[in-house]
Amino acid sequence: MPELRKDPIIGRWVIIATERARRPQDFPVQHDDAAGTATCPFCPGAEDKTPRELLAYRAGHTPANGPGWSVRVVPNRYPALMIEGALDKKGVGLYDKMNGIGAHEVIIETPEHDRALADLSAAELEAVLRAWRERMVDLARDQRFRYLLVFKNHGRAAGATLAHSHSQLIALPVVPRTVKNEIDGARAHYEHRDRCVFCDIVGQELDDGARVVYENDRFLSFCPFAPRFPFECCILPKRHASAYELMDRPDYAGLADALRATLRKLDGALDHPPYNLMLHSAPVGGADRDLPHFHWHVELIPKLGSVAGFEWGSGFYINPVSPESAAEFLRKVSP
Amino acid sequence: MPELRKDPIIGRWVIIATERARRPQDFPVQHDDAAGTATCPFCPGAEDKTPRELLAYRAGHTPANGPGWSVRVVPNRYPALMIEGALDKKGVGLYDKMNGIGAHEVIIETPEHDRALADLSAAELEAVLRAWRERMVDLARDQRFRYLLVFKNHGRAAGATLAHSHSQLIALPVVPRTVKNEIDGARAHYEHRDRCVFCDIVGQELDDGARVVYENDRFLSFCPFAPRFPFECCILPKRHASAYELMDRPDYAGLADALRATLRKLDGALDHPPYNLMLHSAPVGGADRDLPHFHWHVELIPKLGSVAGFEWGSGFYINPVSPESAAEFLRKVSP
Repeated sequence: MPELRKDPIIGRWVIIATERARRPQDFPVQHDDAAGTATCPFCPGAEDKTPRELLAYRAGHTPANGPGWSVRVVPNRYPALMIEGALDKKGVGLYDKMNGIGAHEVIIETPEHDRALADLSAAELEAVLRAWRERMVDLARDQRFRYLLVFKNHGRAAGATLAHSHSQLIALPVVPRTVKNEIDGARAHYEHRDRCVFCDIVGQELDDGARVVYENDRFLSFCPFAPRFPFECCILPKRHASAYELMDRPDYAGLADALRATLRKLDGALDHPPYNLMLHSAPVGGADRDLPHFHWHVELIPKLGSVAGFEWGSGFYINPVSPESAAEFLRKVSP
Repeated sequence: MPELRKDPIIGRWVIIATERARRPQDFPVQHDDAAGTATCPFCPGAEDKTPRELLAYRAGHTPANGPGWSVRVVPNRYPALMIEGALDKKGVGLYDKMNGIGAHEVIIETPEHDRALADLSAAELEAVLRAWRERMVDLARDQRFRYLLVFKNHGRAAGATLAHSHSQLIALPVVPRTVKNEIDGARAHYEHRDRCVFCDIVGQELDDGARVVYENDRFLSFCPFAPRFPFECCILPKRHASAYELMDRPDYAGLADALRATLRKLDGALDHPPYNLMLHSAPVGGADRDLPHFHWHVELIPKLGSVAGFEWGSGFYINPVSPESAAEFLRKVSP
């Protein structure tokens, strides 16, 4: 019997229809053609093919915008939003619009063209996580912005247009719906029970264990109770924290360990799938970054199928793999 | 300058970033391999390859579950939901679930394997629209259901697994989020202004004209002000009506004309793109089907790109084609 499950935070329903497909090998992954380094704008030596760098971690004293970096952040050459200008909010009859003001940055995660995020050492991955943090701290100062979204498209099927490993950061003048829904749902839970729903989830998942993928002292990686997609994973800090960039230093090492283990388990179970990664942190630009009801978290979606009319029309998802069996497969894969 | 636009019904923001791509020919369409009729379970003569028919339009007195039909409705052989059983709602700690009870039907739109929905005559298309209606009227009687979603995936890239033209109907025991958001947004507008937001949109779009794709006496086809995707279209009845299946008979002819014109314009502008179609009508199973604040409508999304981390993480969409230029292209294509 298929099962309907409700996301405890935003109330989104999913259909867990395990009759349709069951095992990782039922999801054959199409791999990208190996792209050459000759024309890659993210490789060392090609620094002049990107806009000037906003941040780079360099060993020794190599000059900016040249080789010698381990992580490098640059503005996106084809930004979805423009950094200069005023919002200029307007009504057009019924409709509302404003100028597309925002920042759109690219975090080049490694100088090596052929290494994926999952291939980095824990220390190298931690440097990427700290670069995200550093850019968020800087952009949060801009009073025009309300939200900073870090995300990553890995593999062409997941929307990556360049093969060289990178993530992106978009600063937005409004809080996006997906995050607003999470915060509103979490606030309702908090008002009703005086507890953070994410803290409750950490507790229930650790007690139950069936959906746990990996854990360390500070972080829990698990398949959510009502996942939209097969092998969808979520990483939550065990201790309450609403803003990613306000964590303690050892937290970044803990996250690097948990994220690395999860990515490597997905690679092992699903033969290096394309995926999307999204970081949800508290909105910026408000009085209070320290929300008692919201946890920052990382969402990971392996790209194994396509979204079609039913999902677009309903916001409901049909998932052929239960999170319990996905987590069981992932637990068995050595990172 | 890119523009941020807000959907007037649900408040979803989109980025209209026209710097990135502009013309229909910037969206090359990958066509499916022609699939043979030999193994097609939807072709006449193969009626025994589907579950027994729920409805068929037949000229003359051909027997059920054999050839002679023009439109045929059957249960999905691989249903996402099961028709038999009780909902059996349960809590699991924090979480809610219920049995996956529902109906999942397939509407085979034509006996001819190689004709697409857009290739049907207006009368043939009207018969499909009436088959949707007839199945909705029947399923609305089942007290377990709260929502009936008709949708169509055309082309493999849009999620179709069989080439023979068909649409689907899923009956759900809960109102899906996407529809709930629309109804809640429309209710807020109604409470504030005592007018239906969809009626307001019809008025503003007809006055403005820039986003109109096609119109006839009863229907308006247009590109919405804040579309998620390039060449996204919406078809609205000009006169207020909340439930699709409660329309007057001539309305189905009017919708057939407007839908056919829109599909043929998309075919002409975008070289027969894959697409998703979704019908949003008022929920069933409540006291009142006649909502003063909600219009039923058809959404059409040509499948031209893929959704990636930014969209998944934000619910925000980056659209490289403004609805004004999409509508201008579509108006010029003869249906």
